[in-house]
Amino acid sequence: MVTILFLLPEFRLAVVQLHVTKVKADNLSRARGLIKEAAAQGAKLVVLPECFNSPYGTGFFPEYAEKIPGESSQVLSEAAKESQVYLVGGERNSGQPVGTVPVAGQPVGTVPVAGQPIHLFDIDVPGKIRFQESETLSPGSNLSVFDTPYCRVGVGICYDIRFAELAQLYSKKGCQLLVYPGAFNMTTGPAHWELLQRGRAVDNQVYVATASPARDETASYVAWGHSTVVSPWGEVISKAGSEETVVYADIDLQYLANVRQQIPITAQRRSDLYTVNAVQEG
Amino acid sequence: MVTILFLLPEFRLAVVQLHVTKVKADNLSRARGLIKEAAAQGAKLVVLPECFNSPYGTGFFPEYAEKIPGESSQVLSEAAKESQVYLVGGERNSGQPVGTVPVAGQPVGTVPVAGQPIHLFDIDVPGKIRFQESETLSPGSNLSVFDTPYCRVGVGICYDIRFAELAQLYSKKGCQLLVYPGAFNMTTGPAHWELLQRGRAVDNQVYVATASPARDETASYVAWGHSTVVSPWGEVISKAGSEETVVYADIDLQYLANVRQQIPITAQRRSDLYTVNAVQEG
Repeated sequence: MVTILFLLPEFRLAVVQLHVTKVKADNLSRARGLIKEAAAQGAKLVVLPECFNSPYGTGFFPEYAEKIPGESSQVLSEAAKESQVYLVGGERNSGQPVGTVPVAGQPVGTVPVAGQPIHLFDIDVPGKIRFQESETLSPGSNLSVFDTPYCRVGVGICYDIRFAELAQLYSKKGCQLLVYPGAFNMTTGPAHWELLQRGRAVDNQVYVATASPARDETASYVAWGHSTVVSPWGEVISKAGSEETVVYADIDLQYLANVRQQIPITAQRRSDLYTVNAVQEG
Repeated sequence: MVTILFLLPEFRLAVVQLHVTKVKADNLSRARGLIKEAAAQGAKLVVLPECFNSPYGTGFFPEYAEKIPGESSQVLSEAAKESQVYLVGGERNSGQPVGTVPVAGQPVGTVPVAGQPIHLFDIDVPGKIRFQESETLSPGSNLSVFDTPYCRVGVGICYDIRFAELAQLYSKKGCQLLVYPGAFNMTTGPAHWELLQRGRAVDNQVYVATASPARDETASYVAWGHSTVVSPWGEVISKAGSEETVVYADIDLQYLANVRQQIPITAQRRSDLYTVNAVQEG
């Protein structure tokens, strides 16, 4: 038996920059509405922000966390099915509290790829921002990769984007799109959010998409917003402002192939001199 | 016996964006003058562009190439001694033709660390730029690292900057400054020159300096110019225009330490999950 896999060369990606409030049911219902809207615009893959169902903050995680399956993953699963899209949503799960990204897939129903942030956000920029996710969260140890009829997708969460090695591993595994649900803040957002995405894209010649919550100046943690999609050439091709919105990008895998042919760094890597390897995988 | 190594926390770096002509003796003499000028401004480490003694182009390399020691490395050595600076200069050497970076050090005289580009520049962007260094050059296989009383420095040449792994290895070896003599062009320059530098800097929390020839619109290969120094926070702290000039930056190793403490990605890397390793070293 010969199996021939046809990958479709182009598809539409949507990033939902949700305005996240303290009312979980409202977050879920607006997310579902925006997923539907994105599907109506032709999106085949929809990415929600990190913590789309809960305000971001270690004080909120225990209260809003759920097991999987649970209320939020159920809504994601239904939304994916009703809109016939692949769906990446980042939430927090309190079994042992960890961050998770359920990925709901179509057309075969929910695909429970539960990723967790591999790197916890523990930083301290004096007078600007101090945050220690490790006070309430445990890091994951699994790479989060899933396949679609379009391309293979790698998922990292927020702070994971700072670690080039993770993107390099995903790229080695054949991912052509990396998505990072994330909530950078008003210090690290302007300094590094776009730079990190463009760097991951140009170094690995992949598409990179980030999904942030909308900015809420009244929240205890103010997210930067500016959800973005970057091309394999390192160009910003879609970018939100700070408000709730959906941004779209057409992911063109032929263009990606052209970039890799023009500047063939993947083939030119000196694997005789250096390697990036996974040590273990879950 | 106990050896205590005191590293000085701050020093001045100069990048000489030389206007390179077809007259080698003139290139050498202006380079020497600008090195002297940089030293008078307090520079302790001076970086010259790739091919500071020769127009860039595979047609020029055989004619301008020299052995080491040779005319150009002799001038570098004398200039380093007379100005009492560490000196990085990229030239082409025709023993088997390869690119080399002689590093002339003080106060003990010339330190013949001869690096070569590890990755040759072979790209083809239709209608924009096609260049195949491999037609006349052979790649090197040695990492180029040298020590100063200030910090450890890693050297890459031009296209090497596209390979994140090289910078990661240098960083693992303790380099706090990466210098890339390079000659990006009018296509890849505006697209990627600054992005790559800022990416290497923020991912490894190191200073990054690039040294380009000045732009010469009449040359067969038009260099982008814009020699730059980037901080470990990813900020451009000095940047040339397109003309011949010297740009300066004060490299502050205490600031670098602060950045690493604030966002401790080096300590947070998941070496249980991934590694970047040197396979062999010369």
